Amino acid sequence: MNEFELIRRYFTRPARRARLGVGDDCALIDAHGTLAISTDALIEGRHFLSGVDPEALGHKALAVNLSDLAAMGAEPLACTLALALPAPRAQDSGWMQAFSHGFNKLAERYDCELMGGDTTASPLIMISVTIIGQVPPEQALCRSSAQVGDDIYVSGHIGDAALALAWLQTGKAPPAALRQRLERPEPRVALGLGLRGIAHAAIDLSDGLSGDLQHILTASAQSGGPALGASIDLEQLSISPEFEQAASGLTPEQKWHYQLAGGDDYELCFTAPISKREPVAQATAQAGVEVRRIGRIDSEAGLRWRDNGQPVTLKLQSFDHFIDTSLKHTAA
Amino acid sequence: MNEFELIRRYFTRPARRARLGVGDDCALIDAHGTLAISTDALIEGRHFLSGVDPEALGHKALAVNLSDLAAMGAEPLACTLALALPAPRAQDSGWMQAFSHGFNKLAERYDCELMGGDTTASPLIMISVTIIGQVPPEQALCRSSAQVGDDIYVSGHIGDAALALAWLQTGKAPPAALRQRLERPEPRVALGLGLRGIAHAAIDLSDGLSGDLQHILTASAQSGGPALGASIDLEQLSISPEFEQAASGLTPEQKWHYQLAGGDDYELCFTAPISKREPVAQATAQAGVEVRRIGRIDSEAGLRWRDNGQPVTLKLQSFDHFIDTSLKHTAA
Repeated sequence: MNEFELIRRYFTRPARRARLGVGDDCALIDAHGTLAISTDALIEGRHFLSGVDPEALGHKALAVNLSDLAAMGAEPLACTLALALPAPRAQDSGWMQAFSHGFNKLAERYDCELMGGDTTASPLIMISVTIIGQVPPEQALCRSSAQVGDDIYVSGHIGDAALALAWLQTGKAPPAALRQRLERPEPRVALGLGLRGIAHAAIDLSDGLSGDLQHILTASAQSGGPALGASIDLEQLSISPEFEQAASGLTPEQKWHYQLAGGDDYELCFTAPISKREPVAQATAQAGVEVRRIGRIDSEAGLRWRDNGQPVTLKLQSFDHFIDTSLKHTAA
Repeated sequence: MNEFELIRRYFTRPARRARLGVGDDCALIDAHGTLAISTDALIEGRHFLSGVDPEALGHKALAVNLSDLAAMGAEPLACTLALALPAPRAQDSGWMQAFSHGFNKLAERYDCELMGGDTTASPLIMISVTIIGQVPPEQALCRSSAQVGDDIYVSGHIGDAALALAWLQTGKAPPAALRQRLERPEPRVALGLGLRGIAHAAIDLSDGLSGDLQHILTASAQSGGPALGASIDLEQLSISPEFEQAASGLTPEQKWHYQLAGGDDYELCFTAPISKREPVAQATAQAGVEVRRIGRIDSEAGLRWRDNGQPVTLKLQSFDHFIDTSLKHTAA
């Protein structure tokens, strides 16, 4: 099977919204308004292990990109896939079918048409997805729009994926619910759309709440306002029962590490003025996603942690690809 | 330097047309009409050698994508870059500066704004670029629009890049002009735009004229018309003086191999009705690109080669990433 047959067999679907889908020099699709565009790459041995479940890998490759649209309040429109993989993988129809199934199923669920791509041989698997969405520009949830006094919210549970990864790395099988959170994150697209016109700033949690919230503070201060900081009430963090059980032998500091600096959560962290608490509650209920109010934006630079009102000092380091050498963002 | 500093330092430019450039969850840009979208990946050891000139690599990574827009008659709008590379490369400011310079310079020349991307550590260099352009849909130069009786044209010279690669692979330094054609292909964007409303079908030559022209025939027949074929007059192929000189010791068959199945030309092959010869001549003159009329689309399936009227039988095999194991599309 050559590269053209691969694309035709596994990734070519009848064009739905596209004028022209996979198979020409370019795909063609109509768009009117403001496009939101993002690219994320996953590298074998870096973001996932070689033995990863290919169906989960296909899902996650698109999910992390949909999560970027969600964090912008953008509606998915289309995506492209560059897939580099060793020839034996390309010839393994079971692997290819599972991978493409995981990818295509999520794409269909979010009406995010796979419009084009490139398949090439490579010594290791590399997956790069570019996603395109649409958002009214005045409603885009930029990182730079946080204001002093804003409430800070986080969706879902955090820490699950990082704890599952830690178990896998020590050779233990993590509880199924935690592994699911690591391997098949659910992008918060409906929540992002519901927060349009309500939230000020938003970001998706890929590197951990600590580092990702700092991106909001930095971007919002750079956009011309005063220095910004945040106080976080650790007892407000939303922890899953599976995390509580699996982490029962850990110290509070160890648990906070997974929750605040573990990463791979793909939940949304967003800020909104106090006056919008009711609309936030309505939007989150409508999206069917639990959201916790965990703190407040203030004018004192830096992040401050409190546990039931008592200050807590934490030494947290978000993952950095060129500093950290361990595996990260593993899809198993 | 971490991944965020890398992006800020080498790839963040003031947004020009974009509402929001590199640095948020998504970039934002306005678009109205039909988008043309394409993705191409370059893998170290597969598309280029490790010792490649990084400035040329940056240029070529974008050039091959611009070439896809050109083949669609689309006007460049924006692009994203996923760059995976070993940490020592990321920390090598000379390499990073040269790579980003090659990329950014070409992006500026074609007003194709780099809007986002992803930088990640990897055992080998992998580059994936997604490009977005705009084209009035009724003027898009699809592969599937060739008609019986159309003239077949090819821009520029073909075979130069493949011959340069062959020299490099045997340890010889190719003539500078040929090496330039291999390392710094010039996308035919102006020609593609000029051919809107004139040409029927178009494709850019990445795998070699033989295979790429076959894509036009196949796509055009599949689109509902009768089977299509083509007759090519080999003496009409446009050969550069540098190729003639460097290939002076080769047989005609060997030369044809480089010209027809070598690939990496990034010239346009297009078809147009006989009635459009004058507009084609005007469009190509305006684009400043030499174009040769090399044959005719007919209704007899397959490609037929003629040399000064005499039939020639050639055994040509276009490059396929999952069959061929040699290096291909090398930027040196």
